[in-house]
Amino acid sequence: MKPECVSGISRRAIQITMYSNSIQKLISLFSKFPTVGPKTAARFVFYLLKLPREQVEEISMELAHLKEIIKNCVLCFLPFEGEGTMCPICSDKTRDRSTLCVVEKEPDLDSIEKTNKYKGLYFILGGNVSPVRKKETAIRSDALLKRAQDPQVNEIILALNPTTEGEATTLYIERLLKPLNKKVTKLGRGLPVGGELEYADEETLSSALEGRK
Amino acid sequence: MKPECVSGISRRAIQITMYSNSIQKLISLFSKFPTVGPKTAARFVFYLLKLPREQVEEISMELAHLKEIIKNCVLCFLPFEGEGTMCPICSDKTRDRSTLCVVEKEPDLDSIEKTNKYKGLYFILGGNVSPVRKKETAIRSDALLKRAQDPQVNEIILALNPTTEGEATTLYIERLLKPLNKKVTKLGRGLPVGGELEYADEETLSSALEGRK
Repeated sequence: MKPECVSGISRRAIQITMYSNSIQKLISLFSKFPTVGPKTAARFVFYLLKLPREQVEEISMELAHLKEIIKNCVLCFLPFEGEGTMCPICSDKTRDRSTLCVVEKEPDLDSIEKTNKYKGLYFILGGNVSPVRKKETAIRSDALLKRAQDPQVNEIILALNPTTEGEATTLYIERLLKPLNKKVTKLGRGLPVGGELEYADEETLSSALEGRK
Repeated sequence: MKPECVSGISRRAIQITMYSNSIQKLISLFSKFPTVGPKTAARFVFYLLKLPREQVEEISMELAHLKEIIKNCVLCFLPFEGEGTMCPICSDKTRDRSTLCVVEKEPDLDSIEKTNKYKGLYFILGGNVSPVRKKETAIRSDALLKRAQDPQVNEIILALNPTTEGEATTLYIERLLKPLNKKVTKLGRGLPVGGELEYADEETLSSALEGRK
């Protein structure tokens, strides 16, 4: 009964006592959202309580339809809505079908699309392998291996995060694809545009030196 | 079409182009949640897409019922569900009806309740006055003035945040309640439990000295 003495999000979430049941229920549901703890979840609920009823109903409706409308592309696994089994990118005849860009998650694909520099296709891996356990955590490695065997695909770009997890995944995928004998490339490393040399870490600066042209 | 060159959250949110319409719609709805930007909103949507359908429907249902079930207490404005017009605190006959604790928002009430030290009633102000414009931004000042006139109420505790906004609001409410000639108190200031003297700011240390006992 002294919540301030108890650490750990889940116990604190349970101990929210002055809120009514449906508020508590929603707080616990929002608490499971990524980056959201019980305090932020409570702010969400009180924000919703202050919204006009129609707006809350709109969110509710959009959520209810989400899983019905959205399906994953059979080629790249991008969630999309509409006819067919392929997303707008994979079904776009003007795109270069010889390059396949492997990303960890959907927002990464979106970031690359926004550069307007890449006209090939994608593959969403859906996660990283754990650098500690050296084991994939439900990433789509089998589907990638199958997809990469497509004779149209000549180059596979591994556009994974320059983090420990991303590096481990890159290594894992490189080994996985090795038997296919296809060109496997990685994103260039170096100084980020707008960054300052003075504040660049050693690894980044080493990569920039190595990648000079 | 070059989103990275454009600053400003709203423009970026509009420019999310590779996501399908219903995903974009949900991202824009979640972007309006407190503390949530378009990147976090996108993470929410992809989190939901990975959840089992029943769980998303559960969230949707809870949201749909939220505004139907929840009503504000006529005395303290705490959202609650159930019979009657008063929340469980205000309708609790064992509580001390002579003290009224004024808080800014619902989570503040919850924090005070969790101390188990306060057995009086509450009043949720619903916001702060702006310290710049010296004008209330839709706070329940009229309702508070009316509530404080209740002859049962002897003491009004202003439990507002020790911030510029909270101070401005405290000042405003003190002036508002002055004609009632009732005891108006504020929360004690001083060192937070577990805090270190070495790192305490001057204001806090001054308050701690003044409030010594």
